[in-house]
Amino acid sequence: MSHVSELDNFFNPRTLAIIGATNTPGFGYGIPLFLQQHGHQDKLRLVNPRGGTMHGMPVYKSVSDVDGPLDLAVMIVPARKVPEVMEQAGQKGIGHVIIESAGFGETGPQGLELHKRAHSIAKKYGIRVIGPNCVGVVNTAGRFATVEVIDEALKPGPVSIIAQSGVFGNILLDGLFEKGVYLSKAITLGNRMDVDECDLLQYLKDDPATEVIMMYLEGAADGPRLRKVLKQVSAEKPVLILKSGRSEAGKAATASHTGSLSGKDELYQGLFSQTNAVRARTLDELVDCALAFSKTPLPAGDRIGIVTSSGSLGALSIDTCIDTGLKPAVLSEQTRTAVKMNAPAWMNVRNPLDVGPSNLFSTALSAMMADPGVDLIIAIAVMPYAVAHEFEKRGVGPDMWIGNIKKLSEQFSKKPLMMVAVGHSNWVKMIREIAGDKVPVITSPEAAVRAAAAMVGYSKRL
Amino acid sequence: MSHVSELDNFFNPRTLAIIGATNTPGFGYGIPLFLQQHGHQDKLRLVNPRGGTMHGMPVYKSVSDVDGPLDLAVMIVPARKVPEVMEQAGQKGIGHVIIESAGFGETGPQGLELHKRAHSIAKKYGIRVIGPNCVGVVNTAGRFATVEVIDEALKPGPVSIIAQSGVFGNILLDGLFEKGVYLSKAITLGNRMDVDECDLLQYLKDDPATEVIMMYLEGAADGPRLRKVLKQVSAEKPVLILKSGRSEAGKAATASHTGSLSGKDELYQGLFSQTNAVRARTLDELVDCALAFSKTPLPAGDRIGIVTSSGSLGALSIDTCIDTGLKPAVLSEQTRTAVKMNAPAWMNVRNPLDVGPSNLFSTALSAMMADPGVDLIIAIAVMPYAVAHEFEKRGVGPDMWIGNIKKLSEQFSKKPLMMVAVGHSNWVKMIREIAGDKVPVITSPEAAVRAAAAMVGYSKRL
Repeated sequence: MSHVSELDNFFNPRTLAIIGATNTPGFGYGIPLFLQQHGHQDKLRLVNPRGGTMHGMPVYKSVSDVDGPLDLAVMIVPARKVPEVMEQAGQKGIGHVIIESAGFGETGPQGLELHKRAHSIAKKYGIRVIGPNCVGVVNTAGRFATVEVIDEALKPGPVSIIAQSGVFGNILLDGLFEKGVYLSKAITLGNRMDVDECDLLQYLKDDPATEVIMMYLEGAADGPRLRKVLKQVSAEKPVLILKSGRSEAGKAATASHTGSLSGKDELYQGLFSQTNAVRARTLDELVDCALAFSKTPLPAGDRIGIVTSSGSLGALSIDTCIDTGLKPAVLSEQTRTAVKMNAPAWMNVRNPLDVGPSNLFSTALSAMMADPGVDLIIAIAVMPYAVAHEFEKRGVGPDMWIGNIKKLSEQFSKKPLMMVAVGHSNWVKMIREIAGDKVPVITSPEAAVRAAAAMVGYSKRL
Repeated sequence: MSHVSELDNFFNPRTLAIIGATNTPGFGYGIPLFLQQHGHQDKLRLVNPRGGTMHGMPVYKSVSDVDGPLDLAVMIVPARKVPEVMEQAGQKGIGHVIIESAGFGETGPQGLELHKRAHSIAKKYGIRVIGPNCVGVVNTAGRFATVEVIDEALKPGPVSIIAQSGVFGNILLDGLFEKGVYLSKAITLGNRMDVDECDLLQYLKDDPATEVIMMYLEGAADGPRLRKVLKQVSAEKPVLILKSGRSEAGKAATASHTGSLSGKDELYQGLFSQTNAVRARTLDELVDCALAFSKTPLPAGDRIGIVTSSGSLGALSIDTCIDTGLKPAVLSEQTRTAVKMNAPAWMNVRNPLDVGPSNLFSTALSAMMADPGVDLIIAIAVMPYAVAHEFEKRGVGPDMWIGNIKKLSEQFSKKPLMMVAVGHSNWVKMIREIAGDKVPVITSPEAAVRAAAAMVGYSKRL
């Protein structure tokens, strides 16, 4: 493999051709329109053997008709046409190609034959290829994407995604921003004719905009190389992995999906733990981990402090701490005193610190943030929405009793803090607003503890 | 314990007194207002030693001043006043009391002493007591509640809740309706001076409006009785239980929360499995199970069919089937033919049935619903929101490719069907709309499979 910056044309092409642009609904119609609407009209060249015009632009009958060099070609043509179009791209001197079309190795021997032919042409010309059977890339920095995505998903952030499947990448793009996870880049790999997860892990390792990597994997393209690369990348940035094909039935499913061989799950489990990759058990866990890792700093140890306005959720959280090997922190005398000074005589000042309906949430949270015996704090803020809504109508937000979270997280910028909000969706929104961009808000107490455990584990092994 | 219908006055009182009604913000202000606004003004009597008027109603200085009988008294007075007020209630002949005040056994010996005194007075007069340290009850049928809840939570449905903690009950009431779980009754138990989870399980067993029971438990009031009662109730209605205090640290937390002794978790695990109670591992799992059990019928066996528009989510689901002991169904020849007839030659017609971007979702789902070899179906409907939103703007909803789910679930009313929707929150809403009231929509593929496994397990043991 050559130097990884070689992949940069996929994300920041100066010029690109959409081969298979068309006036009928589908990718060939939507992608050119998306690129026009997001400021890429000048870079864009449309290609279709029928010629004519489209979206007010000329349509070239072939890439060879395009004047000047092309950094990237996106192919949206039927699979059987791909070898021919790849040959034209090679002759034109295009160095980077994304094949979005499906109908290759995942469909049987005929498709595999097409894959091989296209691949050998690409190799002949030294073309780097993403796909086939994918939706290409997203780069929020340039508002650039080879797939239609909603504008909210283009808000730049520190998380990048490597997804084997196009649909999977899409549903992440649709849902992540609502939870507060913002992206730098997303890449869908499909059948991996050439570029694979290892190439991209290396690219993202060196990408200054990427701080956390999320990955959905069905099977490794090259196990030993993945081991080596994951070790390198994990030493610098957390790599969060969701792996399917754990069971025999799951393996059969991935084989007919992206043609991936999933391999024995025990081997992957070993590979992930040896390389300090963070394995998520479920899709939700992958997202919660991305939220936690991308917003709050790594914990220095495994001692967890819990502040809560619900005793029940405090108890459920501390149970999950024990399940995941985390330690309930012993509060310092100073923390206990700070809370006791204002607490009703009956309040149990311990960890989890259940402040109930008292007005001590903010006091307790501040004291814990300053407590050197607490490595990570989970603050569980719940309130009946009927009450919160009444306050809201009078202009009183939840920060009145929870405190100024943004300021607190700035003041103690090295102390990891996560918030849990459960109940009405508007309540969750209110908490997200006061939490700001440096404090993750997770909507389940057990999930927050699991994300904390993932951070503690990663940090310990680092 | 006397006959359970004895508890009916808690849910349907003909007259009730709020003892501790007050003009200052808090429960004593909000609850009378809530009852007035929800059609209970005529039943309502307000009591406060200061007298005067409030919300346009007279305030009695004592319950003894109230004319005519009172079915229920709700006490919102400081803990130290409760014994005295209980004595007055007894003399007035009130048979049912809810003590919402905190400051009893959960706070130490002094509080425990107050608890004992109030309890002995209640016993002397034969008063049934819910609480202390709770928010009482909700009965959606009469839009009746002894706690302020939002109107949306009062939409009647088949699920009832027993929660040990008031706040916990509240956050369920705030969040469940948004997910499609609608309630009949909710009861928060607090410190269980008298009425406990067993009394209420028996009451709800005989309650025709309740089909599914959700329970949050910190510790059983009476283990052997809970075993007996759970066995009886589970034989008729599913009881879904979330139990905290699993760890030593969690036990300490529950002791200072509702004064509960949690006991060894292995004992509870045994008790639940012997009685066919459904144990949820997390709060989210409790909610997803309530959704599944309350909407779709019990499966006849453990053979799961999966239809999906995302191969990745299909693979993750089938992995979770294997984890939870469910069997991937083998599709009948008829089902395979129905799909193959219209499928592109390359499509793999197997289970999970990944229809990808083809237009076969509806065909595949209908065929599986009719397939006698499939006991429960999970239909995973995802689509990039940029595309769905374009269709929506042209008046085309997701039913165009997913099919008429309401009609399908009526046609095969005995075949359990769950839908999974992942991505943008508006997409989830769109799917909830077309799913109707008889098909649960769950927002995580793994969670849907876990809920299916809970149903299969309950059904098998029944």
